[in-house]
Amino acid sequence: MKDSFENEISRRRFIAKVGKGFVAANVAGTFLKAAAAKEVAAADSPGSKLGWAIVGLGNLAIHEILPAFAKCEKSKVTALVSGHPDKANKLAQQYGVNPKNIYNYQNYDSIKDNPEVDIIYIVLPNGMHAEYTIRGFQAGKHVLTEKPMANTPDDCQKMIDAGRKAGRKLMVAYRCRYEPYNKEAIRIARSGELGPTQVILANNGWRVTDPDQWRLKKDLAGGGSMMDIGIYALQAARYLSAEEPTEVNALIYTTPNDPRFKEVEENINFQLRFPSGILANCTSSYGYDAQSHYRVIGTKGWLEMEPATVYRDLRMRVHRNGISEERSLPALDHFTLEMDHMSECVMQNKEPLTPGEEGLRDLKIMMAVYSAAKTGKTVKL
Amino acid sequence: MKDSFENEISRRRFIAKVGKGFVAANVAGTFLKAAAAKEVAAADSPGSKLGWAIVGLGNLAIHEILPAFAKCEKSKVTALVSGHPDKANKLAQQYGVNPKNIYNYQNYDSIKDNPEVDIIYIVLPNGMHAEYTIRGFQAGKHVLTEKPMANTPDDCQKMIDAGRKAGRKLMVAYRCRYEPYNKEAIRIARSGELGPTQVILANNGWRVTDPDQWRLKKDLAGGGSMMDIGIYALQAARYLSAEEPTEVNALIYTTPNDPRFKEVEENINFQLRFPSGILANCTSSYGYDAQSHYRVIGTKGWLEMEPATVYRDLRMRVHRNGISEERSLPALDHFTLEMDHMSECVMQNKEPLTPGEEGLRDLKIMMAVYSAAKTGKTVKL
Repeated sequence: MKDSFENEISRRRFIAKVGKGFVAANVAGTFLKAAAAKEVAAADSPGSKLGWAIVGLGNLAIHEILPAFAKCEKSKVTALVSGHPDKANKLAQQYGVNPKNIYNYQNYDSIKDNPEVDIIYIVLPNGMHAEYTIRGFQAGKHVLTEKPMANTPDDCQKMIDAGRKAGRKLMVAYRCRYEPYNKEAIRIARSGELGPTQVILANNGWRVTDPDQWRLKKDLAGGGSMMDIGIYALQAARYLSAEEPTEVNALIYTTPNDPRFKEVEENINFQLRFPSGILANCTSSYGYDAQSHYRVIGTKGWLEMEPATVYRDLRMRVHRNGISEERSLPALDHFTLEMDHMSECVMQNKEPLTPGEEGLRDLKIMMAVYSAAKTGKTVKL
Repeated sequence: MKDSFENEISRRRFIAKVGKGFVAANVAGTFLKAAAAKEVAAADSPGSKLGWAIVGLGNLAIHEILPAFAKCEKSKVTALVSGHPDKANKLAQQYGVNPKNIYNYQNYDSIKDNPEVDIIYIVLPNGMHAEYTIRGFQAGKHVLTEKPMANTPDDCQKMIDAGRKAGRKLMVAYRCRYEPYNKEAIRIARSGELGPTQVILANNGWRVTDPDQWRLKKDLAGGGSMMDIGIYALQAARYLSAEEPTEVNALIYTTPNDPRFKEVEENINFQLRFPSGILANCTSSYGYDAQSHYRVIGTKGWLEMEPATVYRDLRMRVHRNGISEERSLPALDHFTLEMDHMSECVMQNKEPLTPGEEGLRDLKIMMAVYSAAKTGKTVKL
């Protein structure tokens, strides 16, 4: 089971094809300037980049993460962990990874003896994040794990504890926190230029097709659309408000007898209350394709992102005084920025912007969303 | 108190200025053709139009309703009811109303003796709709009342009963049900061409400024933004789904110590569940100006209206197969269409599309929204 996800076709494939050239050109220019200003070391000189092992070679790793290393300043891929030796060998050749640094899930722990690996990036199904993160810490490595951090708050806590015990960094891959559009949205939302925020709308939907994929298995995914899709809406409400929700409402619906949804939910709409009075209305769906979308509404205007949280081609619109204005920002690679942030934190012994505690917070709130939907009561946090 | 609203400046003033010429030209063309095809009677010949009395000469009456008669096929204004004789006289002159047909709130009941009045349009504050509707029925007239129909379901029922007893028609002024954009949105949403609807998002916000206006008085308005603004989102969810909600969640927030909100709520976000599984997320605010907006999301695509429910310049976008397409429709005057529908129902002894029972349904659901917000529990309907 643990390898099957690596062969899946996912939505990530479809949105991976657009705008690569533009992104690469843009990033190269920006980074060359930054490199010239900040560091004497040449981009590829030994020691200027930390070594990364990618655990799990599914679509996300193949189409986004591995290509993103080309633009990294502080990160290079030095190892691969996969249940498919042929695929791993091919990718190792493509990305210049030494064949001796290819691992499988059985000999994964021996990565502790490999000094070329500083950081492990867990790109496995959600239910496997805890185990492979903890084993990564036990091997003495730092860990970046995909989101959701784990299936349960308990597992998140175990991962945090394991990192502390090992004296290693733990970061959750909330890539939107590292890319220019969402960073600018956060700046505007928190700046007060739209007046105090009153309401946040955040929506995300993706129509799943293959009923056999791991995202639809409770033990591997932890839940349905909420864990995979709704987490973006939840994150957006949290990072745009810069507050933690105190109350949660939810309604859930799953099409009866749909072969896709034997174990996990299809649609879940949830509401959040924040301490300052901000209210958020959020949606999450595996039933329809909707562009990721959010709107932050202040007393003086509003800001909209659509698409808001996909890998590229994000769009921002700001509305004030009756005028809607589109804002364009550099389209940098989210994964490049995210991985270099992690490398920098390790190099400089800094806490990541999105540490394990951030992943734990989302898990606790998501459990409250499920509880509110189940009980028909507002859950207080 | 009952006259003070007539002197207020409301938001309606601001959105009344755009596109008049275009609308008029468009409507004239359409109606001339329709008139030629359907009726032999000339547009202004006696007997071809029913006589209307407008009760309450506030901004809505002055800037929208009275001008809309110019384009009506079946309706003409023949009487005015107001607490301001000067204003009433001036408007009577402007719209060709016989000065003997000007009434005030004291001699309103004597309208029963006026054969030039067939239909009474109640444009008073919400809390006065019941009394003036019932007195209108007692005067033997048919009644169109503004929305919300009344402050309470009890009052709605009394209005319905009074209409039945008098053998007269009762209609609630849900003008969006009569204009081309919302009618087309309803057609598309119900047609299945976007797949079964899964989620409806409906939002409405308007920043109130004058703290002394009747909309902020509990006895006149019945409640805050929910009654005035949220009702559009609720209506949209109901008419787009063609279903009645079975469950309601809500969160409410009002800025503390804000002089505007001593009696009624500022923001209320609510969720609805419909029998087929459709979930709706709705917002309602007196704290910010947000264009009225809704999105109907089906398994195969979505439809968006923004602005969705204001008096003119509505816009529709339909998204299917990765392509967003703007749809343009004739921009007809909502009030013209609404009033002519009422006249037609009276002429042909038909039930209006939005009878008193429709207003009562909204009131019952709005009371459930308030109850859900107050109790922190999902309210079943």
